[in-house]
Amino acid sequence: MIVQASAVLEYEFAGPTQVMLEIQAATSPDQIVTSEVLNLPDVPWRIDVAATGRRRLRGVVCGRVSFAYTATVDNRERRLLPPSGRLEAWSDLPEDVLPYLLPSRFCPSDAFIRFANRTFGDAGDGVAQVMAVMDWLARHVDYVPGSSMAQTDAEHTFTLRAGVCRDFTHLAISLCRALNIPARAVSAYALDLQPPDFHAVTEVFVGGAWWLVDPTRLAPVEGMVRIAEGRDAADIAFLTSDQPCTMISQAVTVMRQAET
Amino acid sequence: MIVQASAVLEYEFAGPTQVMLEIQAATSPDQIVTSEVLNLPDVPWRIDVAATGRRRLRGVVCGRVSFAYTATVDNRERRLLPPSGRLEAWSDLPEDVLPYLLPSRFCPSDAFIRFANRTFGDAGDGVAQVMAVMDWLARHVDYVPGSSMAQTDAEHTFTLRAGVCRDFTHLAISLCRALNIPARAVSAYALDLQPPDFHAVTEVFVGGAWWLVDPTRLAPVEGMVRIAEGRDAADIAFLTSDQPCTMISQAVTVMRQAET
Amino acid sequence: MIVQASAVLEYEFAGPTQVMLEIQAATSPDQIVTSEVLNLPDVPWRIDVAATGRRRLRGVVCGRVSFAYTATVDNRERRLLPPSGRLEAWSDLPEDVLPYLLPSRFCPSDAFIRFANRTFGDAGDGVAQVMAVMDWLARHVDYVPGSSMAQTDAEHTFTLRAGVCRDFTHLAISLCRALNIPARAVSAYALDLQPPDFHAVTEVFVGGAWWLVDPTRLAPVEGMVRIAEGRDAADIAFLTSDQPCTMISQAVTVMRQAET
Amino acid sequence: MIVQASAVLEYEFAGPTQVMLEIQAATSPDQIVTSEVLNLPDVPWRIDVAATGRRRLRGVVCGRVSFAYTATVDNRERRLLPPSGRLEAWSDLPEDVLPYLLPSRFCPSDAFIRFANRTFGDAGDGVAQVMAVMDWLARHVDYVPGSSMAQTDAEHTFTLRAGVCRDFTHLAISLCRALNIPARAVSAYALDLQPPDFHAVTEVFVGGAWWLVDPTRLAPVEGMVRIAEGRDAADIAFLTSDQPCTMISQAVTVMRQAET
Repeated sequence: MIVQASAVLEYEFAGPTQVMLEIQAATSPDQIVTSEVLNLPDVPWRIDVAATGRRRLRGVVCGRVSFAYTATVDNRERRLLPPSGRLEAWSDLPEDVLPYLLPSRFCPSDAFIRFANRTFGDAGDGVAQVMAVMDWLARHVDYVPGSSMAQTDAEHTFTLRAGVCRDFTHLAISLCRALNIPARAVSAYALDLQPPDFHAVTEVFVGGAWWLVDPTRLAPVEGMVRIAEGRDAADIAFLTSDQPCTMISQAVTVMRQAET
Repeated sequence: MIVQASAVLEYEFAGPTQVMLEIQAATSPDQIVTSEVLNLPDVPWRIDVAATGRRRLRGVVCGRVSFAYTATVDNRERRLLPPSGRLEAWSDLPEDVLPYLLPSRFCPSDAFIRFANRTFGDAGDGVAQVMAVMDWLARHVDYVPGSSMAQTDAEHTFTLRAGVCRDFTHLAISLCRALNIPARAVSAYALDLQPPDFHAVTEVFVGGAWWLVDPTRLAPVEGMVRIAEGRDAADIAFLTSDQPCTMISQAVTVMRQAET
Repeated sequence: MIVQASAVLEYEFAGPTQVMLEIQAATSPDQIVTSEVLNLPDVPWRIDVAATGRRRLRGVVCGRVSFAYTATVDNRERRLLPPSGRLEAWSDLPEDVLPYLLPSRFCPSDAFIRFANRTFGDAGDGVAQVMAVMDWLARHVDYVPGSSMAQTDAEHTFTLRAGVCRDFTHLAISLCRALNIPARAVSAYALDLQPPDFHAVTEVFVGGAWWLVDPTRLAPVEGMVRIAEGRDAADIAFLTSDQPCTMISQAVTVMRQAET
Repeated sequence: MIVQASAVLEYEFAGPTQVMLEIQAATSPDQIVTSEVLNLPDVPWRIDVAATGRRRLRGVVCGRVSFAYTATVDNRERRLLPPSGRLEAWSDLPEDVLPYLLPSRFCPSDAFIRFANRTFGDAGDGVAQVMAVMDWLARHVDYVPGSSMAQTDAEHTFTLRAGVCRDFTHLAISLCRALNIPARAVSAYALDLQPPDFHAVTEVFVGGAWWLVDPTRLAPVEGMVRIAEGRDAADIAFLTSDQPCTMISQAVTVMRQAET
């Protein structure tokens, strides 16, 4: 799929404020950025590119500020979670995958070991367990805007049985890690979201590779544009600032583009 | 059943310390205290008897102190949860029952509404819903000494799927309240506990009356000797003190007595 | 002071819904309701009056519904927290005051014992300790609308150092209970609130009586119209319902009336 | 300082169990491992060495198992936190330092921003702020064995004002991150601990480098032998296993060795 994604963020910063921005599409073999335009305030920006293709911008801004980004992304090489795939032994996991086995800010996976193994432990191989977790979420948790807040963790979502995309992702991650399946959070541009917004989805490591899944089932993985990955939402905010700031407006648009 | 219950508590108090003790069997028509001996330090004690038969002792103690209590209790009039009983309309509940519909320290029942109604809402009348909650606990939560601590609430137990008697009771109460069934915590002397200790069980209000149930299924309700009731464990501690103190030893014994 | 208080609540209930309403001014010697008008949907209402003067309405409503209340209240006998007053020994507390020494849903006072005693323990008598707690809150916690949510407890407010009236009250209550001062939450109509809304304040028991204090310092105690009291916000909601419902509009007005 | 550190761990594993071990001294210019002996069960072990010198062992074990390690470590090049050092601008931080600015499982630093900046924000440069945090911890938090459990986070320690080494470290990290100072958790062998055990300390990034500090002030930094670093205790366990296991015995010894 070829996707056009854009974001226009307007914020007000009372004084000079350090910010980190993660709004650019990641660059990777399964997600080729064919063109992009970045419109930032005219200050020095430091750009880091991670091995995963994640790009992070750092700068200092002040006053009324607009951050705009548009990209055309070719996802035609994206492969979807296959019908089967082994649960990897710890010893076979690449070292940079190990942190995604451990509990994190919003994903206290250590607390879910008993429930996860009892409920999903016999589902089959790694992919089958991931699918069982996703099915369980679809059946037992409701997508309810406003039901959670920025501090909500996966334990509370598990009790509440309601949440938004980041809550679904945190609970999916917690359950997978409790099953010994490495799992991480991914911010993304996604088709079909109503209202359009940044999306939070999940990546799981089975059968020797990372695979995107959307625990909310709201957006097709084929058209998903990955931005950043991390242990949970604490790591993948599109905007982090060292002072409080005020959002003036925010518009995200994602469209499928005809393939010629 | 006729039951003999006793407790001998030895504590060390570094200085003059205010204490509240709730170790006496409650007196009620379904639990007749036929004899009792209370052995307390020789200081003034204030005794309050609640409408429920709950008895609370208040005093000031110091140094190495022993509290001893023995009672013979006739529970032959105790009635067990009947096979059916209506879920009461709010308007029909006695006013003093209403607090037991609301969330409390360890029972954040407001967070369980979605789960409880989806899981138990169609189980039938009030008693059937209570039974469904108890069955669910028996199937999904393990009794694991050491798995929780004094600050553990029902949300954490729900995630963990493990706990001790107070955790079972807190989760049972939370689920019942989320179903509109008034529920409260009861401290008790109970037969068959290994090792013997104070027990925490649940009372539910259905069909116009309070009924004892033991969510752990460890002890028979017929032989249970109620001590105190409250919203949760915060209200029914056998010993509350306004200064830290050290437990030296604690022995609880409960025996069935032959009926002559 | 003579105060006129009114509330008009409009709600939408999808189906027959049980509700409890606590919107009427409590009746007590220091708060005389000289006239009141209650406009409720035309269904049976059960009214309970507690020993404290608290009035609770229970009924079943459906569809678009309006609850309206207006009262004129004479608070001229209200006495304010005196300059001194003893911290009561446990043995001297009336029995119905004891629950307000214990931790509750949003006030885990057991966790604050070390901090409270170290910070306020030497402030003087009971009133002096209460005043020290209120001064501390005014200096260390900011009133920030939107900084908390319905599930926020006093521990989180203590860390965050920000909250709204119910958070201030929960933290004040937790600190007082940790100091052995009975404390409870009170819902009220209050002058000077911007925007006007129901207010949550605190009552402390020192020198043998309950005294109203406003930890936010936003409203004068002389003009406060008490509605209900309880262990914390879980007990004093102006509207509790057994089904989700939608607020359409809500208007609270409180005015001082000239004394003739 | 030259230090000899050793650990002997005996565990019982009911069945084949995947484990990760982090018990070896890290190798780095300020911590030279001059000799070491590792005695592990005779199964294949995968060893990873991180850029920081951290060494992680992965294997599968079963039954009664002993892990033993002894090392002699030369810390004479260790430099201590200097009297001054700048708080780095975000743009000047190495990319691999950024994760240590963000909240993690036990360090919800986002909740401490208001308190930390108000209390330590004016303390001076980066080092001065770190010292102010450490002084505050020494004055306000008590070292109390048994006061916390494995799930305790920095918010609860902040309320409780008591904890053990991991709690001190989690609170120190949370406060530093809230001040924009990157901070991480370090497991270590430490002199002078009573009883001897693995220790948890803190590293802060100021003036362009990481510096070890011990928020408990129980052990000298000169003799500290770093094992592993991570966002918090979730990342630096000396033993992680995918099945429950039973500790049989555990002995840690750390001794200063005469320099010849």
